[in-house]
Amino acid sequence: MFEVCLLGTGGMMPLPYRWLTALMVRYNGTNILIDCGEGTQVAMKKVGWSPKPIDMILFTHFHADHISGLPGMFLSIGNSERTEPITLVGPRGLKKVVESLLVIAPQLPFDIEYIEIEGDSERIDFRDFHIDAFKVNHNVTCYGYNISIDRAGKFDADKAKTLEIPLPYWSKLQKGETIEDGDKVFTPDMVMGPPRKGIKVTYTTDTRPCKNIVTFAKNADLFICEGMYGENDMLDKAREHKHMTFSEAANLAKDAEVREMWLTHYSPSLFKPREFVDNAKKIFPNTLAAKDGTIADLKFDED
Amino acid sequence: MFEVCLLGTGGMMPLPYRWLTALMVRYNGTNILIDCGEGTQVAMKKVGWSPKPIDMILFTHFHADHISGLPGMFLSIGNSERTEPITLVGPRGLKKVVESLLVIAPQLPFDIEYIEIEGDSERIDFRDFHIDAFKVNHNVTCYGYNISIDRAGKFDADKAKTLEIPLPYWSKLQKGETIEDGDKVFTPDMVMGPPRKGIKVTYTTDTRPCKNIVTFAKNADLFICEGMYGENDMLDKAREHKHMTFSEAANLAKDAEVREMWLTHYSPSLFKPREFVDNAKKIFPNTLAAKDGTIADLKFDED
Repeated sequence: MFEVCLLGTGGMMPLPYRWLTALMVRYNGTNILIDCGEGTQVAMKKVGWSPKPIDMILFTHFHADHISGLPGMFLSIGNSERTEPITLVGPRGLKKVVESLLVIAPQLPFDIEYIEIEGDSERIDFRDFHIDAFKVNHNVTCYGYNISIDRAGKFDADKAKTLEIPLPYWSKLQKGETIEDGDKVFTPDMVMGPPRKGIKVTYTTDTRPCKNIVTFAKNADLFICEGMYGENDMLDKAREHKHMTFSEAANLAKDAEVREMWLTHYSPSLFKPREFVDNAKKIFPNTLAAKDGTIADLKFDED
Repeated sequence: MFEVCLLGTGGMMPLPYRWLTALMVRYNGTNILIDCGEGTQVAMKKVGWSPKPIDMILFTHFHADHISGLPGMFLSIGNSERTEPITLVGPRGLKKVVESLLVIAPQLPFDIEYIEIEGDSERIDFRDFHIDAFKVNHNVTCYGYNISIDRAGKFDADKAKTLEIPLPYWSKLQKGETIEDGDKVFTPDMVMGPPRKGIKVTYTTDTRPCKNIVTFAKNADLFICEGMYGENDMLDKAREHKHMTFSEAANLAKDAEVREMWLTHYSPSLFKPREFVDNAKKIFPNTLAAKDGTIADLKFDED
């Protein structure tokens, strides 16, 4: 129901055996992509997902490995005869960067809407989703993103019967509608319990560990975090290039008390990330060194 | 010695099983690439060739599938610590288009030199190569390219002995140098036969058949030509989108009397180009429906 697919897991440059890091989320007919590097449209086809229904693309930052696939992706979406607008979200300067890149895709059959994030964090409500952008610590302005959905409280059928609410109104009340029936007014709070835990996915790449990550990833169902380097002794290099080691990512997962972590955005020099996953698991056991096409179908907790 | 590799064979968009059409030529330490679509750098890695030594990139035109991979390619070349300049050749507007795309690759450790072609055709001499750009017939300005090398005449050792040319000068004369030795002057024409046949590769995609192609491809050793559609009954579609069918390409190969033709730039709807290659072979038998990574090592004719 809340499908999450890590289309690629590479950093810096696409490789014959590893696409660039990008995430796609599908829920209730809405499709959101995070980042779009060179080849992301191919990675998407490889997992059998289509670019046509993409409604929103979130950009972490404007390094080429996170945005260079946009003109090609847009042309493929255009060729699929999509006409609904697409919303792009990213750091300040987004419109200018995208318009520059679209010099080679000047005619698209859909409109582009831009949301430029300026502050330390910003919430965007988009259909069923809350999108939270939060600033991280890279060598250019870079944001992490939470993509989350709420879950309403439980419907109390006994209460509805006691209040003599007619059956046809039950599903409307569950959807949050208020019903007027002659003199009577039925409101959702009359029959719905307190809101239940929703689903939250946190995504952050191209950053050193920082407080914002722990704050925003708090209790995430899935925490997708960069792990540019597997070996602990690459810490100096991680610091220099403003990236992380696996064990640094694991400490964030632990501090944020997330349920599960997927590592991604591996250095081209990191041939077999799984050989180093124990460096993270020692600190945060529920870690996966994700592969291209790693997928999950996140579900609400059982009541 | 004159290596030619068709890195990809797709048109329009990169696919999981087919890279976009691009050609790389390597000869005597010089590397020339034609076109650079999304994923071309991956296709190059896949055949084991490196982007680092690329000296020149020729662009046929500015549709995204022929140039969208440039920022990523340049960053990968930059990461390999190359500092020598790279020459880009393409239709008028090249510099503006490339500078727009490089908004996401603003700092490169090498200079870029631009050659913009304006007329119906233009010859560029680059190291050992003659590059001939010739206008073709697409829905935007588009050029085909000849990449050719000359071959000197045969050295006549008997003549050199008769003329009493000292042995240490022989190789210099073969390289075209003139030698002054006291009162004597030795010139290459004294010992070299008439120029012999060189090697010529003709490359043309995104075009209807046109006279320039036959003129410039005349007697090419290898003619690489688009074949967007395999079926003859796709002719109307080929005309509409300014592309070609396999049999149209074959007619060009026949008229130009080339030695061999490779078809490329297949439509995404053309799953198995080889199923239709007989449509070309009936007209021009020495046709290959090329695959990603099709490679040839072209040699001078035996004397």
